[in-house]
Amino acid sequence: MDMLWSGWGDPAQAAPLPDSVIGLLRDLLGVKPHEAAPVALDDLTVPASPLAPAAHRALAAALGDAHVRTDAETRVRHTRGKSTPDLLRIRGGDLAAALPAAVLLPATHEEVLAVLRLCAEHGLIAVPFGGGTSVVGGLAPQAHGAFVALDLRRMNRLLDLDPVSRTATLQPGLKGPEAEALLAEHGFTLGHFPQSYEWATVGGFAATRSSGQASAGYGRFDEMVLSLTLATPEGTLDTGRAPRSAAGPDLRQLVLGSEGAFGVITSVTVRVRPAPRTRVYEGWSFPTFDAGAAALRRLAQDGPRPTVLRLSDETETLVGLAHPEAIGSGDQRATGCTAVAGYEGTEQDTAHRREGAAAVLRECGGTPLGEEPGRRWAHGRYAAPYLRDALLDAGAFAETLETATFWSRVPELYAAVRDALTVTLTEAGTPPLVMCHISHVYENGASLYFTVVSAQGEDPVAHWTRAKHAANEAILAAGGTISHHHGVGTDHRDWYLREAGPLGVEALRAVKRRLDPDGVLNPGVLLPAD
Amino acid sequence: MDMLWSGWGDPAQAAPLPDSVIGLLRDLLGVKPHEAAPVALDDLTVPASPLAPAAHRALAAALGDAHVRTDAETRVRHTRGKSTPDLLRIRGGDLAAALPAAVLLPATHEEVLAVLRLCAEHGLIAVPFGGGTSVVGGLAPQAHGAFVALDLRRMNRLLDLDPVSRTATLQPGLKGPEAEALLAEHGFTLGHFPQSYEWATVGGFAATRSSGQASAGYGRFDEMVLSLTLATPEGTLDTGRAPRSAAGPDLRQLVLGSEGAFGVITSVTVRVRPAPRTRVYEGWSFPTFDAGAAALRRLAQDGPRPTVLRLSDETETLVGLAHPEAIGSGDQRATGCTAVAGYEGTEQDTAHRREGAAAVLRECGGTPLGEEPGRRWAHGRYAAPYLRDALLDAGAFAETLETATFWSRVPELYAAVRDALTVTLTEAGTPPLVMCHISHVYENGASLYFTVVSAQGEDPVAHWTRAKHAANEAILAAGGTISHHHGVGTDHRDWYLREAGPLGVEALRAVKRRLDPDGVLNPGVLLPAD
Repeated sequence: MDMLWSGWGDPAQAAPLPDSVIGLLRDLLGVKPHEAAPVALDDLTVPASPLAPAAHRALAAALGDAHVRTDAETRVRHTRGKSTPDLLRIRGGDLAAALPAAVLLPATHEEVLAVLRLCAEHGLIAVPFGGGTSVVGGLAPQAHGAFVALDLRRMNRLLDLDPVSRTATLQPGLKGPEAEALLAEHGFTLGHFPQSYEWATVGGFAATRSSGQASAGYGRFDEMVLSLTLATPEGTLDTGRAPRSAAGPDLRQLVLGSEGAFGVITSVTVRVRPAPRTRVYEGWSFPTFDAGAAALRRLAQDGPRPTVLRLSDETETLVGLAHPEAIGSGDQRATGCTAVAGYEGTEQDTAHRREGAAAVLRECGGTPLGEEPGRRWAHGRYAAPYLRDALLDAGAFAETLETATFWSRVPELYAAVRDALTVTLTEAGTPPLVMCHISHVYENGASLYFTVVSAQGEDPVAHWTRAKHAANEAILAAGGTISHHHGVGTDHRDWYLREAGPLGVEALRAVKRRLDPDGVLNPGVLLPAD
Repeated sequence: MDMLWSGWGDPAQAAPLPDSVIGLLRDLLGVKPHEAAPVALDDLTVPASPLAPAAHRALAAALGDAHVRTDAETRVRHTRGKSTPDLLRIRGGDLAAALPAAVLLPATHEEVLAVLRLCAEHGLIAVPFGGGTSVVGGLAPQAHGAFVALDLRRMNRLLDLDPVSRTATLQPGLKGPEAEALLAEHGFTLGHFPQSYEWATVGGFAATRSSGQASAGYGRFDEMVLSLTLATPEGTLDTGRAPRSAAGPDLRQLVLGSEGAFGVITSVTVRVRPAPRTRVYEGWSFPTFDAGAAALRRLAQDGPRPTVLRLSDETETLVGLAHPEAIGSGDQRATGCTAVAGYEGTEQDTAHRREGAAAVLRECGGTPLGEEPGRRWAHGRYAAPYLRDALLDAGAFAETLETATFWSRVPELYAAVRDALTVTLTEAGTPPLVMCHISHVYENGASLYFTVVSAQGEDPVAHWTRAKHAANEAILAAGGTISHHHGVGTDHRDWYLREAGPLGVEALRAVKRRLDPDGVLNPGVLLPAD
């Protein structure tokens, strides 16, 4: 099934906002209904593919005719990613500078190598495309010439499973649920469940250093990866020979997070774990965000560690974004800060950790809310992007951003980003609701995930661009990273360059030039186009 | 205190082998006593320093006269590292091609930057020097010109401690016990205890991806590092802004394992943990190495995980290398395979994990040996290099090597390396005793640490070089990594290049050229000298 071209996910799962929420948006944020409906797919004006006939013939010879697509619909479906500005643009019919000349469907590592060579030869830009879920402009290269999207959906096999070592080798085009289904046949799980899980791919998880909702238990994706194969215009880079090694710098960590700028990831060997026999999620309430954060910190540092651990701030708790179907229904605890703690594993291990963690959470001032809030969270864990579509449909603006820092700096970072967003959007005439939760915890720090809802105003993309830039500045000033799990793309690039520092950027540029001397791969993503 | 110039550690702790062991070595391996004693420090023929007067003046202006040392003793004390070939050479008075022209003692990051610039200007090679404990030729650059050793001992401060985030920023010249003492004042520990702990430094731990004996509990050093500062000839590289990040490739992992070839590490921020209140180590016996390995694997994969976990094979158990003072004394269980499991932490956590692990170890066929073998292991945990000196004094040859692989490949790797060493040395007329233990465990694999003892034969360095090369070939053929924790240096380099693959090597070379365009830093280490 294809993703909705102008929004998120399965069109059948889209649902409009209840009237009560539309009323709240109007009264609280001044949201006005749209006057015009979004452009329909059939009504889009799609320029003819600029792919030169010679290039087309060469690519078709390498991949087969059926795997070089230049029809309008396929190209539109590979235009940009799923950030709110991406959606606002495409809903308005704007395809400018982001429409691929062709969508290629390679099936093997060798075909990817061949395509990259042909791109260099024919002056084409190549953009790897997994689930198309980038929210940081990772699919919109900044190049003058034509570009092709390398859609990896045909590379969707489990290549190897080693039950003794508990490793699996996966092809990059596998979507989250597809990978889980293949592993489940052998009794294993990857345990990687980001919000984009239903659509994002294994290759994308690796290329962007994705982090899932159960990272407290299963780790981040970059911690799961044992080896990678990368197809580059200069040949194959195979990294990772042993689970751990002292043989030089870790080249895996150069490929992870490279976002298609160094090459195309064509296989990923990951650690897998036995599929959990028990899953239980429960809610906790804390009087303040600081108190809740202190409780999460204690569990992250001293354990026992839940598999899922997150904490909404007062505003997010009040609005109930954690379970959107309840918004405005008043059936929830509306004060303080709600945390969700989840436990997955064997029955015994789950019970033991749950009991131990509960004692810590109580000691830290938490009040148990039982399993109902946990069930609601689990039920809605992948639903937020659908809610965003409904908000956009209702004339509201909604977007998210995220960062991470060390525990001692969390309060300052939290305040700085919230204030930057609030002040900028208020000054623009669209005062926002800014909500936040701690989405991932580590021994030494945590990530903060912000959600912003406001009226769209006259020019929502321009409004948001200013607010987002102010948030980026606040993040750097407060010592945060420009992205904890969304990646860099083109949207974060200029702040990323400052985070990496001039010599760090030069080191990356040296690698890029060696692996991709003609600048075929994703120009403008991660590093400025030459 | 300075390390023994021609061997290991504190000269006061050196002890000759008991006569019983000397008898065993003679009867079992044909070891003959040396006819000549090693050369004394005063009797060495030390060529005058080739440091040009202009370079000397410039360096002295930057660091102060007292911090540019060209005297014979200081230079000899910075000649090569502590591999057995290194020791055999220097005991024979051979300083060739490894004697630094000067030893520099910079005190700050800025002084290191200045020294690197001056080296480029004056055509000097620079070799960072921490504890001088390299066993892979990491301190013997392959260059034509004169080289200076950058001894970082004056950079020995704790720069920052964040008790909330549990992070510490350490200078690179701190030796293991010095770092622990500074952290202990605040109630914390790093938990990094490699065999070289008493002499090796924080900068060296990072530069070589060191792994400590308690890695099952505290992790490897490369997993502890949160950020690093690197001084390069092209300026400063600061890496690591948040505990975890999706902002591009992880540049920390490019600096970790760079062995001084990209720059000089001038500060390291690490995670720290509360100093454990309880420490207990105990012995277990398994009927076979495979049975013991399966038990270790179960704990590494499903827990509960001990803090220390290691398993000797039958030969190592028989010889009792785990507690050298007992060799030949017959006071130990001499059959099967002995494991050591250690637990550090709070009293409650330690007791809980110990109880849970004991149940697993019993289920896997283990027999508890009580705390006495654990105490002996803990007592002798840093003593093996002293034993090696005593063996060399007695006319024997002794050396170690290590590798790692995935669990399913451990049996094949074990057999391949053991056979390669045995066959090569037997063919050379010095049949060896080859012992092995699993030294570090992970979810997906383990490391194997081999110890070889034989007669020295006519030319022990040449004998060993052939055996070591055969072992390296066996490691690559069996899918292992050329080093799990010793690093690459010059000794492993040619196999490392094959492990990294041609394009991986090219990526590293591109980084090297950008950060060190004049090839000042450690030529021949990690990458071939240009």
